[in-house]
Amino acid sequence: MGLIVQKFGGTSVADAGRIRHVAGIIAETYKAGNDVIVVLSAQGDTTDDLIEKAEEINPQASKRELDMLLSTGEQISVALCAMALQSMGLPAVSLTAWQVGIQTNQTYSDARIRKIAKERIRAELDKRKIVIVTGFQGVNAYGDVTTLGRGGSDTSAVALAAAFHADLCQIYTDVDGVYTADPRIVPNARKLPEITYADMLELASQGAQVLHNRSVELAKKYHVNMEVVSSMERVPGTKVKEVVKVEKTNIGGVAKETNFARLSLVGLEDCPGVAFKVFSLLSRNHVNVDIILQSVGRSGSKDISFTCPMSSLEDTHRLLEENRDALGYDTVEVDDNVAKISLVGAGMMTHVGVASDMFEALYDAGINIQMIATSEIRISVLVSKDDANRAIKVVHDKFFDDEE
Amino acid sequence: MGLIVQKFGGTSVADAGRIRHVAGIIAETYKAGNDVIVVLSAQGDTTDDLIEKAEEINPQASKRELDMLLSTGEQISVALCAMALQSMGLPAVSLTAWQVGIQTNQTYSDARIRKIAKERIRAELDKRKIVIVTGFQGVNAYGDVTTLGRGGSDTSAVALAAAFHADLCQIYTDVDGVYTADPRIVPNARKLPEITYADMLELASQGAQVLHNRSVELAKKYHVNMEVVSSMERVPGTKVKEVVKVEKTNIGGVAKETNFARLSLVGLEDCPGVAFKVFSLLSRNHVNVDIILQSVGRSGSKDISFTCPMSSLEDTHRLLEENRDALGYDTVEVDDNVAKISLVGAGMMTHVGVASDMFEALYDAGINIQMIATSEIRISVLVSKDDANRAIKVVHDKFFDDEE
Repeated sequence: MGLIVQKFGGTSVADAGRIRHVAGIIAETYKAGNDVIVVLSAQGDTTDDLIEKAEEINPQASKRELDMLLSTGEQISVALCAMALQSMGLPAVSLTAWQVGIQTNQTYSDARIRKIAKERIRAELDKRKIVIVTGFQGVNAYGDVTTLGRGGSDTSAVALAAAFHADLCQIYTDVDGVYTADPRIVPNARKLPEITYADMLELASQGAQVLHNRSVELAKKYHVNMEVVSSMERVPGTKVKEVVKVEKTNIGGVAKETNFARLSLVGLEDCPGVAFKVFSLLSRNHVNVDIILQSVGRSGSKDISFTCPMSSLEDTHRLLEENRDALGYDTVEVDDNVAKISLVGAGMMTHVGVASDMFEALYDAGINIQMIATSEIRISVLVSKDDANRAIKVVHDKFFDDEE
Repeated sequence: MGLIVQKFGGTSVADAGRIRHVAGIIAETYKAGNDVIVVLSAQGDTTDDLIEKAEEINPQASKRELDMLLSTGEQISVALCAMALQSMGLPAVSLTAWQVGIQTNQTYSDARIRKIAKERIRAELDKRKIVIVTGFQGVNAYGDVTTLGRGGSDTSAVALAAAFHADLCQIYTDVDGVYTADPRIVPNARKLPEITYADMLELASQGAQVLHNRSVELAKKYHVNMEVVSSMERVPGTKVKEVVKVEKTNIGGVAKETNFARLSLVGLEDCPGVAFKVFSLLSRNHVNVDIILQSVGRSGSKDISFTCPMSSLEDTHRLLEENRDALGYDTVEVDDNVAKISLVGAGMMTHVGVASDMFEALYDAGINIQMIATSEIRISVLVSKDDANRAIKVVHDKFFDDEE
């Protein structure tokens, strides 16, 4: 008995049959006496189809209009799901982000949630209604529709769970939990019964597709109990929380990310403030950079390399070109044939030998490391995209294979 | 130089090519120095596809959820059209009904516009933006999405034209004006250069598909200058206004309507208040009835027949069944194989012989008249649907053929 937020992705609501199946899961939770807030993504390929429509008309469509267009996808899902629940005799009501009052900042296509108004949802829950909310979207101060960017529906779900102090936030997906590596690439990957926010965060931001990193950040910040569960089969999922039982190994998992590119500014002047100029420019223009590498170049100049998401590659490249004089560099080099392999685990860096074991595995496999970045709980290396799957296998085997 | 409202229907925005074409028309109007408010319907079959999705999940879906679902159709159109204009270098912004503040009453799927907030559109026009608004929809006092029912986008356009005192409200359609009869049925039908609100209203409510009657009512009430024009070819359309030049004949045109059914309550008690009971029940349940016929039946009982739209036939039938005892009748008879043929023209009924000429034409063609209804400016007859096209031809020829 409590308040449960349940989020279902696009595959889970792809057609009438799937929606009925999802309605069954929701109904069971509701009939057990819980209040239920459901968050849905757009059906199957709807978002891609809408993007295609837009590109046919204007490949440089404004982000405001794109958000206006794309937000219809989730609206269709929530209305259909409410209808499915009503056909089972259950009281359900669908709500868009503007009806709820999910207020975001102004950044179209990658907005951040500022505040969630509680009145409307509270009123519906008080009437014992199942509330079905559009994921992925919000409304900004102008009253315009915004979308939250990739994986935004997870973020919507966690934000709602935080706002309403939900007892649990279940993320239903087509995998049945969080694995030590992608099971499609590494067949002997193991499912984790639980994982800490910190490890999940590193795994998510390093390319594990299960949860979007922003949703995990938010869950960590507001202490939201999350659970990754399969919408297909009834098996235990993975619980994401503050502290987990100590395991034999500190390594949480291995992740791969390919959807980004490496940019290098070659021949920058070697004087103070150069890095600041580069990254403040990028930050002002909302470019998320990840691994940063600064190296001394030829004769008193230096090079700065960094990675950014593929989606902002074109804009970032243009931005750098436009500011060539202000930044003072010779050339920009772009490499989009790269992949990042990350090893994640709490306290890992304090264990002597973890990094060197990882590098050894890659060296033994003849894989060249382009860049290295470390945090307290992860080690990431940049390799050629062609080596990515082999890299994740050898790293996973190095740390997990002898445990079975 | 002025403010022009332009409405384009679903066929006019069916695909990328059509949308570009529509954007061309809008651009021309804007570049001539006018402020432009555009109202769009959902693309081509979008609404039908959405209804199909809903029926697959729940054939008795609540109207609230249906409106939530269907309103996405126009949102897609307006976003795409704004993108098309932006690709031509023109400033355009799309707005949904809730963003504008098109406030309606609570009647889902057939709502009436109560009030239009002016701030947002005014602010965009002041920035010289082309404002593109979703037709067919509004938002009620609960903040829920409503739709305006059949032809609702015409109504949206006229309501916006009235609210902003537009100089002209152009309804772009796939025909090039208002004809004396449907040219697909009556090949020698003539296009009218202008028509009065009153005649247009009768033609519209009697099944001429060009304009929805509620839009004409609204135009008449607020003195909105309307124009029906072709979105396909550049030819003069039909102007709808208060007074038109007097023509040789008073007959405005002939219309056919088939999308309704006849219901008969047989064996009602022959006492005062029976008709009141029947029609107050129907009115409380928002059933629009049209032709009403009351006749004396067998031995002190009476029968009441009326026509209602096909879309509410099922609900109306159930409503009557449920209230059998309260109303006190023997049986309900339903006939959905009927058509209504209407002759429309200002002052027509004061001309001796118009009605009898019409009945004569039908008699000569061997067509049986089931019901008759007249107003000051129209004569409608109910005939079998099988006779409908023949009926409209013979009536049209009777009044228009000798004029060429």
